[in-house]
Amino acid sequence: MSSTASLICDLGRDFYRLGWATGTGGGICIRDGAQVTIAPSGVQKERMTPEQMFTVSIAGEILSRPDDPSLRPSECTSLFLAAVRLRDAGAVIHSHSIHAMLATLLFEREFEISELEMIKGIEGMSYHDRLVVPIIENTARECDLAASLEAAIIGYPRTQAVLVRRHGVYVWGRDWKQAKTQAECYDYLFRAAVEMHKLKGVSDASLSSRSAESLVRR
Amino acid sequence: MSSTASLICDLGRDFYRLGWATGTGGGICIRDGAQVTIAPSGVQKERMTPEQMFTVSIAGEILSRPDDPSLRPSECTSLFLAAVRLRDAGAVIHSHSIHAMLATLLFEREFEISELEMIKGIEGMSYHDRLVVPIIENTARECDLAASLEAAIIGYPRTQAVLVRRHGVYVWGRDWKQAKTQAECYDYLFRAAVEMHKLKGVSDASLSSRSAESLVRR
Amino acid sequence: MSSTASLICDLGRDFYRLGWATGTGGGICIRDGAQVTIAPSGVQKERMTPEQMFTVSIAGEILSRPDDPSLRPSECTSLFLAAVRLRDAGAVIHSHSIHAMLATLLFEREFEISELEMIKGIEGMSYHDRLVVPIIENTARECDLAASLEAAIIGYPRTQAVLVRRHGVYVWGRDWKQAKTQAECYDYLFRAAVEMHKLKGVSDASLSSRSAESLVRR
Amino acid sequence: MSSTASLICDLGRDFYRLGWATGTGGGICIRDGAQVTIAPSGVQKERMTPEQMFTVSIAGEILSRPDDPSLRPSECTSLFLAAVRLRDAGAVIHSHSIHAMLATLLFEREFEISELEMIKGIEGMSYHDRLVVPIIENTARECDLAASLEAAIIGYPRTQAVLVRRHGVYVWGRDWKQAKTQAECYDYLFRAAVEMHKLKGVSDASLSSRSAESLVRR
Repeated sequence: MSSTASLICDLGRDFYRLGWATGTGGGICIRDGAQVTIAPSGVQKERMTPEQMFTVSIAGEILSRPDDPSLRPSECTSLFLAAVRLRDAGAVIHSHSIHAMLATLLFEREFEISELEMIKGIEGMSYHDRLVVPIIENTARECDLAASLEAAIIGYPRTQAVLVRRHGVYVWGRDWKQAKTQAECYDYLFRAAVEMHKLKGVSDASLSSRSAESLVRR
Repeated sequence: MSSTASLICDLGRDFYRLGWATGTGGGICIRDGAQVTIAPSGVQKERMTPEQMFTVSIAGEILSRPDDPSLRPSECTSLFLAAVRLRDAGAVIHSHSIHAMLATLLFEREFEISELEMIKGIEGMSYHDRLVVPIIENTARECDLAASLEAAIIGYPRTQAVLVRRHGVYVWGRDWKQAKTQAECYDYLFRAAVEMHKLKGVSDASLSSRSAESLVRR
Repeated sequence: MSSTASLICDLGRDFYRLGWATGTGGGICIRDGAQVTIAPSGVQKERMTPEQMFTVSIAGEILSRPDDPSLRPSECTSLFLAAVRLRDAGAVIHSHSIHAMLATLLFEREFEISELEMIKGIEGMSYHDRLVVPIIENTARECDLAASLEAAIIGYPRTQAVLVRRHGVYVWGRDWKQAKTQAECYDYLFRAAVEMHKLKGVSDASLSSRSAESLVRR
Repeated sequence: MSSTASLICDLGRDFYRLGWATGTGGGICIRDGAQVTIAPSGVQKERMTPEQMFTVSIAGEILSRPDDPSLRPSECTSLFLAAVRLRDAGAVIHSHSIHAMLATLLFEREFEISELEMIKGIEGMSYHDRLVVPIIENTARECDLAASLEAAIIGYPRTQAVLVRRHGVYVWGRDWKQAKTQAECYDYLFRAAVEMHKLKGVSDASLSSRSAESLVRR
């Protein structure tokens, strides 16, 4: 278990640098068989140590906890476990990336994008497919997201991610590697959508018809 | 005291990498009981050493100083101490983040934002609350900001930060961890406001009514 | 061979940090005489180890392979080898940089730019030259790009790079150093084109004629 | 001399990470008395070693050179020495920052900005001063910039920097620390000008009059 706990600390530093886990937000859980390792709530994700980790069962019972009595398991626990239970995920990442948040402002109920190479990084998707990510509405308390997250996972059987409006995204995978590389692909796609949106606005207003067409037609 | 001095040097490197402390600007003070550790003025914040630190009382008297006679305490000292005295802050961060500076160009007297998950990272705030940060006008000399900073702290009893027009932001917390994580949340919110502003401009001019509505309505 | 394998792992970390190789995408091959070292497909490019590398002949035969039987050579192999064969390249870089991808949205068949200092970083180009980079259309499978990549390399004898629409770019050089520094110059130029595009849109709509002229005239 | 040579290598890595020295461009020279240490031309600025450095006199004579016979002194040598001679600079930085380059597209002959805190980081300037940076036209060969760079230094006795159109910037200081911190302040100011330009465009087109006024009035 301790190598998983160390890995979560390493990934916490990586996700902080990527802008996914600033201000104690964001995080990752990793499952080993029937045990899920989860970080504590409200700590700096780039400065965690292995002794601070919790392990919980897939049903959410605490199996082991850190010595520090002030620590509580991540607020994301029930959300993480939804993806573990419903999709047999081996790892789930929650990101507060500003690209994910901004992408939720551009769409009503579903983020969608097509014909970008990075779509191929998502399980089961190819270049010409239309990638759809459901967007659920945010709630005042993170745990209150569980019901709508579960509904989105069930309603979109092909998705590997659920966006949360004005908040961020949950991404999972069969193991931590796939969860992480899929999270990177999704993050690129959210950022690409925001940037293409900005260029489209510019083009329509002021560019030659050739370039504007090029943006619209593709 | 020396562990606090080392921590300030570490955080100086972190803040430099975040773009909060370039060109010798920005910084942090940390209070241990009645003693406040403060960096010197005009030095590269990513290359400080513990021997360069000052300690001052809460009233501003110098308690200890570095051997190097050319060093003077940070220009921010009186501003840092305002938050220590008026809010019992355990640490105060001053950031020159370009996101904070740009955010001061979008609002008259108060930065305000609502319904973003990162608002929950600010003491006492929940998702649906309207987060308000007072903006004070900049002055030619940093020490001349003290009176208006104090007035803003008193006038906005719920705020954990004060923006300075065309300059940056002061953020505090009960200890260095809370000051830092709150500073990260504020920085995200300032950047989000700037980016949403850009997208809104684009949307109004050129996007489908669906997307534009989505931006306006939320 | 092992120093080349280590170098590829180092460069993988660098390219990941630059945003060229996220989500297992992107990569580099390096040729030593008649042997080409190539990374495996579908692995995290910032976490590779030297034992994971393949060596192939210039014709594409596998000369040595890693012990791990689950690894296959990079999907880019036939594309990398096209530049090796047709241009005697000593190294080829494939980047998924978002700047390269966005640049392909602004042009029909050829990216072009002129009068930027960074153009001088490209073999045989000077400041006043018109730098042209052919853009080929993306395909569902990476290996299906080989024919159009070869055609572009042959059709543009002066180019050191080929863009792939909505995907990224291939850049080569006589050795890994030139391939890398040229890839950096191209990446800057793609980003510059996107940023100049945004500023041009803003200028036309709202700036003083002086500034707008300045943008148009140059 | 060897500590200066090591420092240049360290700063090369820093400037590469800041985006000032990609693709072998950019660099720094440091003067110790009558000797100036200068990096070689055309090498990766983040991978230099102390043995690769040249030393030259203020008049430009080579005093010592690296063993590697393929190395030539930086193309910037005569430009660096102009600031050393005319301003008694202790260090000169050349940056290819994209913010500097984009800033040269927004102005005719002089970059100017006022009322930003970071202006105070420039020697002799205060918050309300109008900071002016002359812009010289780029040339096909870097050494051909010398005459116009000298003319700009003489013509603008208060400036600590000269911008080069569609290219980058030269910044100097009394020693490497001041040159570096001034270069950071200038870089922030160039980026701020570009970002404020984008926001102004957006505001004029689509924002409430309150925010637009706020941008214009200040």
